[in-house]
Amino acid sequence: MSPIVRTSRRLADGREIIYFDDSHSGRRDAVDGRPLGERAQAGELRYDALVDDWVAIAGHRQERTFLPPRDECPLCPSGRGTAPSEVPESAYDVVVFENRFPSFSDLGGIAATGQGPLLGGRAHGRCEVVCFTSDHDASFASLGQDRVRTVIEAWVDRTEQLSRLPGVELVLLFENRGPEIGVTLHHPHGQIYAYPYLPARHVTLLTAARRHHERTGRLLGTELLAAERADGARMVLEGEHWSAYVPYAARWPVEVHLVPHRDVPDLPTLTGEERDELAEVHQKLFRGLDRYYVGPRGEQVRLPYISAWQQAPVRQGRDVSRLHLQVMSVLRAPGRLKYLAGSESAAGAWINDVPPERAAARLREVVG
Amino acid sequence: MSPIVRTSRRLADGREIIYFDDSHSGRRDAVDGRPLGERAQAGELRYDALVDDWVAIAGHRQERTFLPPRDECPLCPSGRGTAPSEVPESAYDVVVFENRFPSFSDLGGIAATGQGPLLGGRAHGRCEVVCFTSDHDASFASLGQDRVRTVIEAWVDRTEQLSRLPGVELVLLFENRGPEIGVTLHHPHGQIYAYPYLPARHVTLLTAARRHHERTGRLLGTELLAAERADGARMVLEGEHWSAYVPYAARWPVEVHLVPHRDVPDLPTLTGEERDELAEVHQKLFRGLDRYYVGPRGEQVRLPYISAWQQAPVRQGRDVSRLHLQVMSVLRAPGRLKYLAGSESAAGAWINDVPPERAAARLREVVG
Repeated sequence: MSPIVRTSRRLADGREIIYFDDSHSGRRDAVDGRPLGERAQAGELRYDALVDDWVAIAGHRQERTFLPPRDECPLCPSGRGTAPSEVPESAYDVVVFENRFPSFSDLGGIAATGQGPLLGGRAHGRCEVVCFTSDHDASFASLGQDRVRTVIEAWVDRTEQLSRLPGVELVLLFENRGPEIGVTLHHPHGQIYAYPYLPARHVTLLTAARRHHERTGRLLGTELLAAERADGARMVLEGEHWSAYVPYAARWPVEVHLVPHRDVPDLPTLTGEERDELAEVHQKLFRGLDRYYVGPRGEQVRLPYISAWQQAPVRQGRDVSRLHLQVMSVLRAPGRLKYLAGSESAAGAWINDVPPERAAARLREVVG
Repeated sequence: MSPIVRTSRRLADGREIIYFDDSHSGRRDAVDGRPLGERAQAGELRYDALVDDWVAIAGHRQERTFLPPRDECPLCPSGRGTAPSEVPESAYDVVVFENRFPSFSDLGGIAATGQGPLLGGRAHGRCEVVCFTSDHDASFASLGQDRVRTVIEAWVDRTEQLSRLPGVELVLLFENRGPEIGVTLHHPHGQIYAYPYLPARHVTLLTAARRHHERTGRLLGTELLAAERADGARMVLEGEHWSAYVPYAARWPVEVHLVPHRDVPDLPTLTGEERDELAEVHQKLFRGLDRYYVGPRGEQVRLPYISAWQQAPVRQGRDVSRLHLQVMSVLRAPGRLKYLAGSESAAGAWINDVPPERAAARLREVVG
């Protein structure tokens, strides 16, 4: 792979922007001349005593940019006859910057408020945006393998840097794709959330992993991978360092887990070889996803999805947690969505109308 | 209240249908003459080892009735010039019947399958539909107080009966309202799920309630109600036996909890007086919800919502659990939905863009 050049700069309101360049060799010194107002302070984090969990209250996000016209895309490079954007440079390879409408922010420090069962504090942490490409009309699946490799290095960098922030307990790297999942900007991009507490799903992931390890001395993630490979009915692809499968108890109409063969807690722990193969199998998988459904006139259906790297918590359970990419889609048929209605939202009880073996069979047809 | 007459009958394929009549005095003996095929067997219940939880796989539900034309509504009474429906009678007050496309069913018994970390079994349990009225164009909010009182008795009956089924751990009574939340039938109706395991949200509700009780000797739900009433900023209504408030750590743009003043685990434990006032405050609240948003031309906006009775588990924790109705909406502004995207779906970390105090202030304007 070509060497990646990392340049950190500041936007007009003080937010950090970081360029990860694999093709560009010049300096990244364009200045953000926009008359931006003051940065949003961190919102509130409130304790939900009923379920022993935290909720971020972010009132300023109600006013966030919502499906802007193409020539006002805040993620396109600036100075190409369009409005100045969040990226001052006129081109970029991969770029990361602090979210202008963050759910969590490190402005303002940590402070506790409230009393009795109504406990709260500042929503301390950090939210970032990752632009995968300067091409507004691309998608992650259309990136070349080299560019994916750059994105992987950006993910590694951000995981390492954000893990060092005081109070951060988890770094989540994710992409929401498609209007069906509520995307407010079409430019291909992902997000990074550095949470100041361990989110609910990660509490349960960690609790289950710990208990399994205490009982058996083995890693739960390793055993699940072995069981899926032995069974075979839900396997989607197998490489030298990575495998992908539809989990036995999939919750979503389309759900795939992409997991490393070696026990690793997070992306920074991957070797160069593992990262290289990841760039390859990631693209195989995501190109397949866009062939998964065929529309009524035989056309391809752009699959809406959430794709998220499940990494180990920053400060605990790193010895029992196992990295995996979780990709999930709400589309249960062309034009038909799965909704998280009464059973899922009120009880947390998931009903999946698509047998995982059927989804895996279709994925094997379209991946590869 | 008028006496309610309960009549249990069978549909053509053997499913139970139960009429709860408050105005009708004749017999309920209409016969279901439809040539229905065999009933769907229970689907699969699979263990999700990663998070120590269960997922129901219900492949037959992919083919369920989806937004049928009005004259084919399966929830309207039969024999009014429309196709024969799920209700053989030509009129009804409130009716409950077993769901034709159930996620859980008591056909087939309990059986375990799988091995190693891939454990499964039959999705044993029961799913029912509750029709609140025979008027296709009504809504829960438009029901008279007497009819709501009948619905309450039907809920009590079903909670008692389903709690007695072998293996049932939780009875959830809920209504999904509006196409935004994925409703597939417009006729005003709710659903009842009798789960063969304690769903994830109820595991966390129970764990938090138990810990609080062990630490303080007091009920968490009681303390939260007292704290909300003392604070006042999020109160929506206060009656003699019931109060409604937006919870301090609300997750949804619109979320209200309606809670009894007395410590009760479930609906059957309510006194007649408490049920009478419930019929009154329930309607106040739900009529207010449809005035919550005003559209761009000043029109009322039918609020999409999920409304769910959070009752104590059937077989455990009844001494620490406290009944409450949880109403939640994904609508964050007219035409703007909250999506459960990366943070909520991949991490279980909720971001609410609407401060609960602002939602409560608006609710106080429109309720009452």
